[in-house]
Amino acid sequence: MKIEIYLIGGHFNFYYGMQRKKIVTIGGGTGSFTLLSGLKKYSVDLSAIVSMADDGGSTGVLRDELGVLPPGDVRQCLVALSDSSQMLRELMNYRFEEGGLKGHSFGNLFLSALEKINKSFSKGVVEASLILKVNGDVIPVTDQDTNLFMELEDGKKLKGEEDINHNFDIEKIGIKKNYLFPRAKANKKAVEKILEADLIVIGPGNHYCSILPNLLVDGIADAIRKSKAIVVYNCNLVNKRGHTEKFSLDDYVDSVDKYLGGKRIDFVTFNSKKPSSKLIEHYKRQEESLIPFEVSSRSSRRYRVLRSDILSSKKISFGPGDILAKQRALIRHDSDKLAKILMMILELGEYENIIKEIV
Amino acid sequence: MKIEIYLIGGHFNFYYGMQRKKIVTIGGGTGSFTLLSGLKKYSVDLSAIVSMADDGGSTGVLRDELGVLPPGDVRQCLVALSDSSQMLRELMNYRFEEGGLKGHSFGNLFLSALEKINKSFSKGVVEASLILKVNGDVIPVTDQDTNLFMELEDGKKLKGEEDINHNFDIEKIGIKKNYLFPRAKANKKAVEKILEADLIVIGPGNHYCSILPNLLVDGIADAIRKSKAIVVYNCNLVNKRGHTEKFSLDDYVDSVDKYLGGKRIDFVTFNSKKPSSKLIEHYKRQEESLIPFEVSSRSSRRYRVLRSDILSSKKISFGPGDILAKQRALIRHDSDKLAKILMMILELGEYENIIKEIV
Repeated sequence: MKIEIYLIGGHFNFYYGMQRKKIVTIGGGTGSFTLLSGLKKYSVDLSAIVSMADDGGSTGVLRDELGVLPPGDVRQCLVALSDSSQMLRELMNYRFEEGGLKGHSFGNLFLSALEKINKSFSKGVVEASLILKVNGDVIPVTDQDTNLFMELEDGKKLKGEEDINHNFDIEKIGIKKNYLFPRAKANKKAVEKILEADLIVIGPGNHYCSILPNLLVDGIADAIRKSKAIVVYNCNLVNKRGHTEKFSLDDYVDSVDKYLGGKRIDFVTFNSKKPSSKLIEHYKRQEESLIPFEVSSRSSRRYRVLRSDILSSKKISFGPGDILAKQRALIRHDSDKLAKILMMILELGEYENIIKEIV
Repeated sequence: MKIEIYLIGGHFNFYYGMQRKKIVTIGGGTGSFTLLSGLKKYSVDLSAIVSMADDGGSTGVLRDELGVLPPGDVRQCLVALSDSSQMLRELMNYRFEEGGLKGHSFGNLFLSALEKINKSFSKGVVEASLILKVNGDVIPVTDQDTNLFMELEDGKKLKGEEDINHNFDIEKIGIKKNYLFPRAKANKKAVEKILEADLIVIGPGNHYCSILPNLLVDGIADAIRKSKAIVVYNCNLVNKRGHTEKFSLDDYVDSVDKYLGGKRIDFVTFNSKKPSSKLIEHYKRQEESLIPFEVSSRSSRRYRVLRSDILSSKKISFGPGDILAKQRALIRHDSDKLAKILMMILELGEYENIIKEIV
């Protein structure tokens, strides 16, 4: 069972009724930024549910020093959905380069100050959304101050995104348990949006540090299982050394389904376009043994894999506003191509019976 | 020659032609904030020329560490003229209270980041004005990085607002020279606005650290002398210990006129209302020997003194948004009363011949 869809040169027109379709995205900062930047061009009702497990860099310092919740991933989603001036969006991503402020993202300070003034991170995000003219809802997955933990098979416990991200023995040793401590309850609004959604889009993003932490929050997986929405998983483009180095596409889906508490994924988007050999070499030079996926030959899948060119061919700029370049995500999704295929899935959803026959 | 004007219960209506009257204010942060908060309620064309000599607190740290120009006083003027939400205005005055960010005003970080992105403080201020929906022009008096110096009669040199402000022997020893180093040229736009103005309002504000530093910038005093505008000096309400402790109203006017390079002040506003004995005691308890003015009995003045109640009777709140409370300016001008008398002067200006007869 394999569907190949070639989007090159294709056109898709969508005609909806009075009510705009409701799309919920679930992820971290960088992946959600790409996803939302594409989806915002369509007339849909967008809600971005954002992981709150970040504890690195500017975000980590603010958590430690000010006792605020992690603003970094939320900031990227706000910028993606902001209809404000280019200058204001650039300002939100500006990082101070000297002195005591070095490394701090202005947008993180903005969210932390609003949290302090409003005495609630969620209320601060609502105020930020008004100031930044955000077209959609950006919803922190939880309002509780929690930490991500990973217990390995050898008994070692890794605490926080930073620790986990920089440990490259995870896959070798094996994971016993991923969990949040203290346990965190889902933001009510996140649950509501999931239950009402027509389409739920999970990923792309760092598997253990951005995607799964959302599903570890009490109430999120339940809501996704209960929702009547089509559930799409945007598979990453490259494996992460020592984390998901040996993963096939199906391993990712199985892992997400496991944390969803049931086989709930309907569609998987998967890139069919090979990156340039120059880019692949660049990754190798950085000693990042990142491997393009191969579709494994699993005989039967309950989810449908949509293969198409969703790779960005944009020249990489290292300008101040380019979040993705700073994260060195050189092999990355193309916002517009990804959004197009998701909108197609949303339309196909209405004609699911027909599609089932075709497949 | 004494004019007493009682504004209590009075109403002033202003009817202008097609063109709005042009008002230029000259001062620092706190005094200009009060002044502009009142003037913005009238349909006039407002330009705030702001001193750039500040080097204390959050502003001082940013100057040192980031090499930016001092944002503090400009920030206060932007907030005063901002038509944006109460939340955004409150955010601009928010100060971080913990960690490495402690003491930093969010609005200062905002202006410094915009200066860095735009590679010019003035351009940053223009962008800030757009974001904050500023109704008017806020113009840093100079774009050059300069420092305020005061040479005392005993040869001692004080550098910067902080040093000068905390030296209480200035009046006793005497001042030889106030100057900027390196010399700074006026912002072109500041000169243009002064030349076009109908009304130029100097003060209130710290005499040596906020008012005079504007007049020390090359081109400002010249432009004020050349301008056909009515020039008003808003005299402070209280003397500053060790600085202007023995000053009479006329001493202030003489000092400003000296730096203007000629007798150019047309009107002086002066408060006639005595603060409560409770407030006067409060000042004494803080060991701030601040003395309410007495109008001296100079026999002839070329400027007219307008005495009226321009004292704030508002209850002092120490809320996060209240700049003035934080500066402990408890005996302070009332924005609305001050604006009313200035608008009256502007109207009287049109009938100057009549007034001259009355006086």
